Amino acid sequence: MSALSGGEASGTAPPAAPLAGPLAGPPTGLLVGPDPDDARLSAVVSGIDQTGARVETSVAAERPLTLFLNGREIVTLMTIGDHPELLALGYLLNQGMLRAADEVTAVDYDGDIETVVVRTRVQTNFEDKLKKKTQTSGCAQGTVFGDLMEEFDTIRLATEARLRTSWLYALTKAINMQPSLYLKAGAIHGCVLCEQDRPLVYMEDVGRHNAVDKIAGYMFRHGMTPEDKIFYTTGRLTSEMVIKTVKMRIPVLVSRSGFTAWGVDLARKAGLTLIGRARGRRFVALSGLERIIFDADAAAVDEEEAARHARKGGRAAPFDL
Amino acid sequence: MSALSGGEASGTAPPAAPLAGPLAGPPTGLLVGPDPDDARLSAVVSGIDQTGARVETSVAAERPLTLFLNGREIVTLMTIGDHPELLALGYLLNQGMLRAADEVTAVDYDGDIETVVVRTRVQTNFEDKLKKKTQTSGCAQGTVFGDLMEEFDTIRLATEARLRTSWLYALTKAINMQPSLYLKAGAIHGCVLCEQDRPLVYMEDVGRHNAVDKIAGYMFRHGMTPEDKIFYTTGRLTSEMVIKTVKMRIPVLVSRSGFTAWGVDLARKAGLTLIGRARGRRFVALSGLERIIFDADAAAVDEEEAARHARKGGRAAPFDL
Repeated sequence: MSALSGGEASGTAPPAAPLAGPLAGPPTGLLVGPDPDDARLSAVVSGIDQTGARVETSVAAERPLTLFLNGREIVTLMTIGDHPELLALGYLLNQGMLRAADEVTAVDYDGDIETVVVRTRVQTNFEDKLKKKTQTSGCAQGTVFGDLMEEFDTIRLATEARLRTSWLYALTKAINMQPSLYLKAGAIHGCVLCEQDRPLVYMEDVGRHNAVDKIAGYMFRHGMTPEDKIFYTTGRLTSEMVIKTVKMRIPVLVSRSGFTAWGVDLARKAGLTLIGRARGRRFVALSGLERIIFDADAAAVDEEEAARHARKGGRAAPFDL
Repeated sequence: MSALSGGEASGTAPPAAPLAGPLAGPPTGLLVGPDPDDARLSAVVSGIDQTGARVETSVAAERPLTLFLNGREIVTLMTIGDHPELLALGYLLNQGMLRAADEVTAVDYDGDIETVVVRTRVQTNFEDKLKKKTQTSGCAQGTVFGDLMEEFDTIRLATEARLRTSWLYALTKAINMQPSLYLKAGAIHGCVLCEQDRPLVYMEDVGRHNAVDKIAGYMFRHGMTPEDKIFYTTGRLTSEMVIKTVKMRIPVLVSRSGFTAWGVDLARKAGLTLIGRARGRRFVALSGLERIIFDADAAAVDEEEAARHARKGGRAAPFDL
């Protein structure tokens, strides 16, 4: 897939391929986007259907990735396998195991043994804490949650951010039309970092937590500001999604799926603008309503049902995860 | 909700309420099932829609549960909050932190501080390993995956088990018709342990990994045999679902959703009968085909689309997670 148009502007890179390499995106204006033509990310699987007839179907790949922070084994993640370095960085950031101020000296991915090692100049606060913790009562993965909630309570999101409903409709349409692994193979989640009406970074993965972590890794690596961004996800708005979005300092979170009661509670506590069930012209805004500007005529927006059937040949459920 | 009919037979319990207490199920033949009338499990949330009109919607609850194994803090899980003891047991079993042979002396749940403590008569093999591990390189949550895969390779599933397609159609119909939190609040996963054409244990949770863990906890506590069971899930057939089903020694796994390439690979390796996209008359069988008996006339089965619309007033996607 070519990266001739779109992509990141870079003063030093050759103008014909500004984004060559693993972060190269499709020519759509996205900085990074799905690459459904990457043969590593999907496979054709054969089975039989209810009549006994042989069927072949394209499905998403999934592989383990074991993550180390300096000398310490942290976790094994199941991922489609693109952007392992960004996933590693984003996971550590969103778990509070790495802080924005920590100096990362290397992120080494080894595909043969499916590991990624994040190295920092000095031992992180988390490693310090883990060392103390494991000497007393336990493994300290649980205490990560306590630390996260403590930080959550102190975060103030940008009050001057806005969400125009015209942007919302433009974004959901652009994302739905974007060639993706979902459209090719289904059964996969997508998360998209957006600014106004433009999708910027579109990541997919078998778990939505991986997709959001890859975006966090990208923002960290490229020093992107969160205050003026909108976060879109195909997945449900659970507490985890709300906590991660707030931790990333992004003031607006939109999903085409539903939400949990605690997800809504946390969004209200943090003053996050939370929008669920965004499909076609419909949506439900649950929190942070003061950022929303109703500048679109909802009645003029196509119902998604019709558009989807035209595009996907009537497959039953668009994001059925 | 009454438990007058169905439920577990018990020689000592009063005949009118054989399943009184937290495990009481609805009068459907299920041993345990969803209790959509339990006020703790859902909440009404208000927001505004695309026209600015106020809307109220019923959504699933979600709360943290911190799990301890003896003196050791293991993890904080996000759960709807029913059956915390079963969730704790099942999580530890499915992670290989607790073995079927370990003698559990107590499972203490404290709702005020949202913790559950599983106590064993002697220190578990996992605690031993963790103690050694944390003294050397790390937290050992990652090594859990290595141990799981090692065990996975040794498991032989019951070859004499069968899946009749008539059972499959009866099961999916019964599960779809069962009153549930999904039908009330949406955005929640369900897993059902079945035998032949009968659903036995139906658990729901915000994450499908919690729903399956609660079933594992129930099977452990009640000494249920896995060899003659069928496991049904609303969620995707990822590596995690396949590994857990095999670890539970259940020979048949069915989902209404899609699957990943590695999920299919693992199922074939273990000889698990794997069926995806089971909706209405349609399904795709991917592995363990020798257990399937095609005894139903697929053409005589209603397409789900029509039935669903009749039941749910045309909501767009039945399990949109």
